[in-house]
Amino acid sequence: MAGTDHRHQGAGLTDGGPVVILVEPQLGENIGASARAMLNCGLAQMRIVAPRDGWPNPAALTNASGADGVIEAATVFDSTAAAIADLQHLYATTARPRHMVKPVLTPAEAARQIRIQGGGGGRVGILFGGERAGLTNDDVSLADTIITAPLNPGFTSLNLAQAVLLVAWEWWQAADATPPRQIDTGASRIAHRDELLNVFAHLETELDRAAFFSSPGKRPSMIRNLRNMFERADLTEQEVRTLHGIVTALSGMRRDGKPRGTRDSGGETAD
Amino acid sequence: MAGTDHRHQGAGLTDGGPVVILVEPQLGENIGASARAMLNCGLAQMRIVAPRDGWPNPAALTNASGADGVIEAATVFDSTAAAIADLQHLYATTARPRHMVKPVLTPAEAARQIRIQGGGGGRVGILFGGERAGLTNDDVSLADTIITAPLNPGFTSLNLAQAVLLVAWEWWQAADATPPRQIDTGASRIAHRDELLNVFAHLETELDRAAFFSSPGKRPSMIRNLRNMFERADLTEQEVRTLHGIVTALSGMRRDGKPRGTRDSGGETAD
Repeated sequence: MAGTDHRHQGAGLTDGGPVVILVEPQLGENIGASARAMLNCGLAQMRIVAPRDGWPNPAALTNASGADGVIEAATVFDSTAAAIADLQHLYATTARPRHMVKPVLTPAEAARQIRIQGGGGGRVGILFGGERAGLTNDDVSLADTIITAPLNPGFTSLNLAQAVLLVAWEWWQAADATPPRQIDTGASRIAHRDELLNVFAHLETELDRAAFFSSPGKRPSMIRNLRNMFERADLTEQEVRTLHGIVTALSGMRRDGKPRGTRDSGGETAD
Repeated sequence: MAGTDHRHQGAGLTDGGPVVILVEPQLGENIGASARAMLNCGLAQMRIVAPRDGWPNPAALTNASGADGVIEAATVFDSTAAAIADLQHLYATTARPRHMVKPVLTPAEAARQIRIQGGGGGRVGILFGGERAGLTNDDVSLADTIITAPLNPGFTSLNLAQAVLLVAWEWWQAADATPPRQIDTGASRIAHRDELLNVFAHLETELDRAAFFSSPGKRPSMIRNLRNMFERADLTEQEVRTLHGIVTALSGMRRDGKPRGTRDSGGETAD
């Protein structure tokens, strides 16, 4: 999905968003892709524990694809304990059960809880393990809470940046107020019902003139079916006018009674 | 997140899942990562329209990271129209407004609608555009419905495989029944309230003996605070027994009255 105004990258950033902590990540590509996923979802604070290939890592910047600020502001630590020192609530992401007595939340439920904690001024962090084996049990034991995404049980291995996106997306979505369904009617608006009835009448009149309804007994049900077809489409007022024009053009007859073939400034010559 | 039983990749696959259609993708890496994201979320049907680097693409297989079956079963088409011919419901993903009179759904709402359509036997497809500029307006115009993820308005450019993950995750999640919060208590169970009251009584008795409550007037509120601390932890029956052991060990006094320092098979010598 393309389309970003790079002048306003910070527009959606939220104070109180959780810190993303990558523990012993291997590939700069994945660190960069994680930064991009974070910024997509309004998160900007990244910490990195003992990155395998050192830091800074040019591949991270390249793969951030514009989320340079996240990479440039990332801080590096020698140990997980050092990276989490100032945090108050800590989550660990893991795909497999760790058999620890610790709450395991879905990403959506964790997002709700993190929003509550962050909204109350709490500093929250989320641990993500490296590509090879995820977090160690010792790292998981540092956290209050586990996040596990319930995925296809036959294939739960998420790419690191995909795991970051999934959790960040749920966090972002938890406070998003976008209407689930919108329709862009441009300069027009959804038609009023009398406008629909008018165009139905126009169409049905012309169909009668054209002897479309061969069986008078079937006319009522055919008319209902025609109306249903157009009613399902949530027509705009502009589209209703276009339909009037189509009926007029196809029937070869103006509303004012002029015959087929007369030139019209709003359409092509009909023959 | 690691941890997959590769013998059962198909375990979570669902008939009726939507077809993912990548239109003119550029990088095999992204095609592979999209396949991985699809299989994470139980989707297996990929179609590819005019891949820039031809097909098959070795990088796609490498980056599928085990989702080989999705790549091997992918079908390639010359045009979007050919790729969608047999579908009945078609969605187009896009980050930017296209100013078409077409419903725009969030991924979660689209997931609900796709589940309904698929559940009714409908064949559903979702178009994803290439890395450079997304779908053309002509491709978008082929779809019934647009899906737009409301992201950080300052940084809406999602990687192709990330866009696939986000939509596939919402589809998967829409039918997932995982409890939002679980706790693995292993062979134990959450303690009954009388077990808690017993350990509180044990602790408070020993604290009285140790003259912990220096001010008798503050004793009731200090006891309430102590109880709150343990009550917040949702202790298991095993943990309650461990607490009894800790109180016994630290107080240096057995329940049977033996003095501090007596060897105990269940713990260390106390001094």
